Amino acid sequence: MDSSLLSLSKNQMMKIELYLSERKLLIEQALERLIPKADGTFSDLIKAMRYSLFVGGKRVRPILCLAAAEALSQEKNLIETLLPTACALECIHTYSLIHDDLPAMDNDELRRGKPTNHKVHGEAAAILAGDGLLTYGFELLSNPENVLSAERRLKICHLIAQASGPTGMVGGQALDIANENKTFPFELLQTIHRSKTGALISCSIQVGAVAAGASTEQEKDLLRYGSLLGLAFQIVDDLLDATATTEQLGKTAGSDKKHGKATYPKYFGIEKTKDIALETVAAAKESLASFDHKAAPLREIADYIYSRTC
Amino acid sequence: MDSSLLSLSKNQMMKIELYLSERKLLIEQALERLIPKADGTFSDLIKAMRYSLFVGGKRVRPILCLAAAEALSQEKNLIETLLPTACALECIHTYSLIHDDLPAMDNDELRRGKPTNHKVHGEAAAILAGDGLLTYGFELLSNPENVLSAERRLKICHLIAQASGPTGMVGGQALDIANENKTFPFELLQTIHRSKTGALISCSIQVGAVAAGASTEQEKDLLRYGSLLGLAFQIVDDLLDATATTEQLGKTAGSDKKHGKATYPKYFGIEKTKDIALETVAAAKESLASFDHKAAPLREIADYIYSRTC
Repeated sequence: MDSSLLSLSKNQMMKIELYLSERKLLIEQALERLIPKADGTFSDLIKAMRYSLFVGGKRVRPILCLAAAEALSQEKNLIETLLPTACALECIHTYSLIHDDLPAMDNDELRRGKPTNHKVHGEAAAILAGDGLLTYGFELLSNPENVLSAERRLKICHLIAQASGPTGMVGGQALDIANENKTFPFELLQTIHRSKTGALISCSIQVGAVAAGASTEQEKDLLRYGSLLGLAFQIVDDLLDATATTEQLGKTAGSDKKHGKATYPKYFGIEKTKDIALETVAAAKESLASFDHKAAPLREIADYIYSRTC
Repeated sequence: MDSSLLSLSKNQMMKIELYLSERKLLIEQALERLIPKADGTFSDLIKAMRYSLFVGGKRVRPILCLAAAEALSQEKNLIETLLPTACALECIHTYSLIHDDLPAMDNDELRRGKPTNHKVHGEAAAILAGDGLLTYGFELLSNPENVLSAERRLKICHLIAQASGPTGMVGGQALDIANENKTFPFELLQTIHRSKTGALISCSIQVGAVAAGASTEQEKDLLRYGSLLGLAFQIVDDLLDATATTEQLGKTAGSDKKHGKATYPKYFGIEKTKDIALETVAAAKESLASFDHKAAPLREIADYIYSRTC
């Protein structure tokens, strides 16, 4: 496949980057509002939670959640209504990063260009900050002040618990850790990707769809888009870990190799991996064939993910 | 107060012990059914989760949840309907024990008479087993197959998230760890107890009340009972840590002293602490004054908790 097919013009690039930065700001303002302040009895714990939550991050999952809802409906208050759900996704994602970085896990010292949580707050506080963020995610999802119907919120809660639990993200991380420095079939790499990273990304999109009242068919299409996008995201991450510098990444480059982790480039080499990323992004966009102009941000995000490899 | 007032006759003791062991069996059968089997892709993680879940335990929280519901209604299917919620409480409690025992936290080697999770499965697997149990707890709570109304389930989910989150159990553990080997006012000890242990115990009772459709007044009374029972439970735990042997406890005795932890006996001495436990149990039972015979198990459980000190 000709990669120029998907390369973005300077204008397109500026447009999607503006969209992403506006959404990032919106989500960060909501997080600031919705996460407890570090000023009371539990201030040290909340400080540690806030450290990782506000140290940076692209806010991919909440942005995808909002974009999926908007692909279906542009009802005025939809975004406002969905912000606690979007923030919960970010809390749960951030907890997973804190725990993955722990000495007993990947033992990483840098994340988003800053020292990892346990390097700043100590190991016990980092474990608890992760536990706190995970639990607080479910507190946000089940908050009675949320105006979505109880049925929809409960379904959202269940989808997110499944995607982040023992057969989703936690399961994927366990497989990843258990298979460090081992040779294993490509199918296992796919399972690790799908569960460790893919599940929460595609769930973010599904949850946006559910909140906006998607039909079964629409939910299925968006879920397919989400699975392919999650895969593309992981492939690009593998590529960047192999090709970018620590400074560019904001986390220790070559970390996968250091831990003897299986990655797409390890199976296919850099060039073939780029091709696979491109095909995956194209397939993700095809899943949106029946959606109108409201799905433009979802299409552009897919292109943008690929553009990170160029 | 004369402790003989609350001492149980041999018959009473047999009756409550029979009740507790029947309920324990019911809950363990439900856990066996509701927790994923350790036989698929994620079998190692699930094995580690199941290890701590089935290594023993009194199942106090799920038993209290069911007993609180029964204090209000003896509708035929109520217990069956509530079992997933009760099991979720046990998952969340078990996760907290696994993380508390970690080398970076209390560094304990024994729990319920068996090696702690990280001693058997390694530290990374233990962290993930905890994460998996916490998340699976919310998966159970939000499962669409549950027949409780969406409104009640969502309220239950929110209460449990609050009780186990950064201003509840996780917050309490963070305070506990941060104040090891420090001298601090008695008020802080109360805050630690209330958040670390008390919150989830009283929440278990409140959740049973909500599921059974308690009135505001009934919920308030049961919540008061729960707070006092949680406090009594913690005081008795402090007492046992100071007076019982490792063999009797099934976990390392004298662990609080080893970690320089503040406890009731440290502030008041053994005898005065026993008096406080007795008064607390009596106050817990008084909160049930407006309840009829259906609350008998809750009253007996309070007495039983005190009887552990004798």
